Amino acid sequence: MGTSGNFSAVISRTPLRLAITASSLPKGTLRASDILQCDENGRVTGRAGKKPSAETLLHVEIVRRRSAGAVLHTHSVWSTMLSQTWASAPGAAVEIEGYEMLKGLAGVTSHQHRELVPIVDNDQDMTRLAGRIGDVLALHPKAHAFLLRRHGLYTWGDTLADAERHIEILEFLFETIGRSQGGQ
Amino acid sequence: MGTSGNFSAVISRTPLRLAITASSLPKGTLRASDILQCDENGRVTGRAGKKPSAETLLHVEIVRRRSAGAVLHTHSVWSTMLSQTWASAPGAAVEIEGYEMLKGLAGVTSHQHRELVPIVDNDQDMTRLAGRIGDVLALHPKAHAFLLRRHGLYTWGDTLADAERHIEILEFLFETIGRSQGGQ
Amino acid sequence: MGTSGNFSAVISRTPLRLAITASSLPKGTLRASDILQCDENGRVTGRAGKKPSAETLLHVEIVRRRSAGAVLHTHSVWSTMLSQTWASAPGAAVEIEGYEMLKGLAGVTSHQHRELVPIVDNDQDMTRLAGRIGDVLALHPKAHAFLLRRHGLYTWGDTLADAERHIEILEFLFETIGRSQGGQ
Amino acid sequence: MGTSGNFSAVISRTPLRLAITASSLPKGTLRASDILQCDENGRVTGRAGKKPSAETLLHVEIVRRRSAGAVLHTHSVWSTMLSQTWASAPGAAVEIEGYEMLKGLAGVTSHQHRELVPIVDNDQDMTRLAGRIGDVLALHPKAHAFLLRRHGLYTWGDTLADAERHIEILEFLFETIGRSQGGQ
Repeated sequence: MGTSGNFSAVISRTPLRLAITASSLPKGTLRASDILQCDENGRVTGRAGKKPSAETLLHVEIVRRRSAGAVLHTHSVWSTMLSQTWASAPGAAVEIEGYEMLKGLAGVTSHQHRELVPIVDNDQDMTRLAGRIGDVLALHPKAHAFLLRRHGLYTWGDTLADAERHIEILEFLFETIGRSQGGQ
Repeated sequence: MGTSGNFSAVISRTPLRLAITASSLPKGTLRASDILQCDENGRVTGRAGKKPSAETLLHVEIVRRRSAGAVLHTHSVWSTMLSQTWASAPGAAVEIEGYEMLKGLAGVTSHQHRELVPIVDNDQDMTRLAGRIGDVLALHPKAHAFLLRRHGLYTWGDTLADAERHIEILEFLFETIGRSQGGQ
Repeated sequence: MGTSGNFSAVISRTPLRLAITASSLPKGTLRASDILQCDENGRVTGRAGKKPSAETLLHVEIVRRRSAGAVLHTHSVWSTMLSQTWASAPGAAVEIEGYEMLKGLAGVTSHQHRELVPIVDNDQDMTRLAGRIGDVLALHPKAHAFLLRRHGLYTWGDTLADAERHIEILEFLFETIGRSQGGQ
Repeated sequence: MGTSGNFSAVISRTPLRLAITASSLPKGTLRASDILQCDENGRVTGRAGKKPSAETLLHVEIVRRRSAGAVLHTHSVWSTMLSQTWASAPGAAVEIEGYEMLKGLAGVTSHQHRELVPIVDNDQDMTRLAGRIGDVLALHPKAHAFLLRRHGLYTWGDTLADAERHIEILEFLFETIGRSQGGQ
């Protein structure tokens, strides 16, 4: 699902230690040595040698704000499409309501739930982007995920299994919504 | 095909005993202990320990009304899409006519057959939803399947193989119709 | 590619003997005993026991008119879609021109080739349908294939490999054309 | 990805020696003996016996103009679609801007990069087509790829891995753009 991305899992909360994928890895060939340990500033704390993912600060921001145990970031055609279709207005978000599949998101018990997936403008300055994501997470305290415009999906969960289920659920819903709109 | 769902098969008719998948199972990891036996009220009759699927009452309703030997429920992008495209009117149904593939439905011998797949509004109250499904099945005595709005497909057959063939046929037709409409 | 269908290969031309798949076989489980031998009237000539495909007469018609060594018939979403999109006019045909992939059809050496894939109305009366197909093949002496309306694709070749390549080429082109039209 | 195509890799630059796939090979069955060695005029220099790809001169042109180490050519539905959608004007090119995935192209460091993928009219005369491609590469000195109209994609890189990554990136972006346009 998607062609690249990165992921992290919390090793300890105090002090914050994150296991995170190294930067620029070709997909499908991940090895144990490609997982690095870093602190709350995105600096490698364990064995060095590889560079952590450029987006480490975004993972740290999410872990802090959501007390998440794992964060997943993926690129996919449908998430990229929806992030640009819905992103023209400030405060843009993909609205998803009325789908049974929403019950796969943590804490959701009815299809009548209304999920807002905020869309954040992409940026190559990770400090600035982390700040913007912090604002968006504060503004949407119940959101299970957000989209980076023309970039991809970030979601999280108490465990890696929860975060994986969120990816699966959201990709299903993005595809359904994307196809329903005829791609426009 | 689809990302989750549940299924059941009739073990005995008098008294009614249904083998049915347990609730909330991750896909792809089904084991023998995940199949429960329950009665006509959806109560576990055999070895307990797991909760039967929340939708057990819907299976019971279908088995009773149709004398089905097996019931399958799946979630898929195309069935979800069609269930919302066609569902604005009361008595809504997806109309499928003129396709050779219709001959894969039990008892259908010509592409000129007109199949109505009723669409039922989704509900988290299973007793109420089972009642509504009973009404729809009574209203459409020849239907081979129905859709739950923004939820998924239910179909059935004399045997599990028949029900599986119905899924395959209907998903093919839903995709063809969905693509032909350009998703609108 | 496609969910069902049938195929045949010429064993001898005088008298005509065709190896053809038996009727109503579940896909993916074809065994040697599911291949029957039949004559120019579609009657089983070798070991009996199974019924030849209901569409045997169509295969015979194609083999005779085209001196084909093999005939393939498949169902697919894109071929079904194009067969209904383009079928409103009499003499309907899908026109395909300007694609490099056309060079995969026997005897075609340039993308500037214009291929007409005639569309024939579907029918459950196989004798009548075989007659209609004979007329269409006579009218389109250079066609490499035809579509049965809302049913599927028939193509052929000197060898089974040629017919398989034609399926692959035509499905690629049908998908390209179908997507280019936005499904309308 | 795609149903056919060809590829080459530079063995030596002075004199130019190219390893290139032989002509008309069925996909998925490539063997060592299907790779030929040829010179800057597309003539086989090593062991003969097979014909080099008809498009060898195009590979030579790209290798010369771009100092590429490897060239890949693929056919796919999305690249074929975009090559016809955007090709009506002279100097036609697919414009891709604002996507994070662009950073997978060699030398691109920001999603704000604007990539132009020129579209070249298809031709069966390879000498003439190679000349046209030379002109287009000169006109677009920063392009990472070009499309042959209704034919397919050519891309290249310092290494085979770079060229493969370019295929992957561009196919992702073509699909995203193609779906966003609803195919029109």
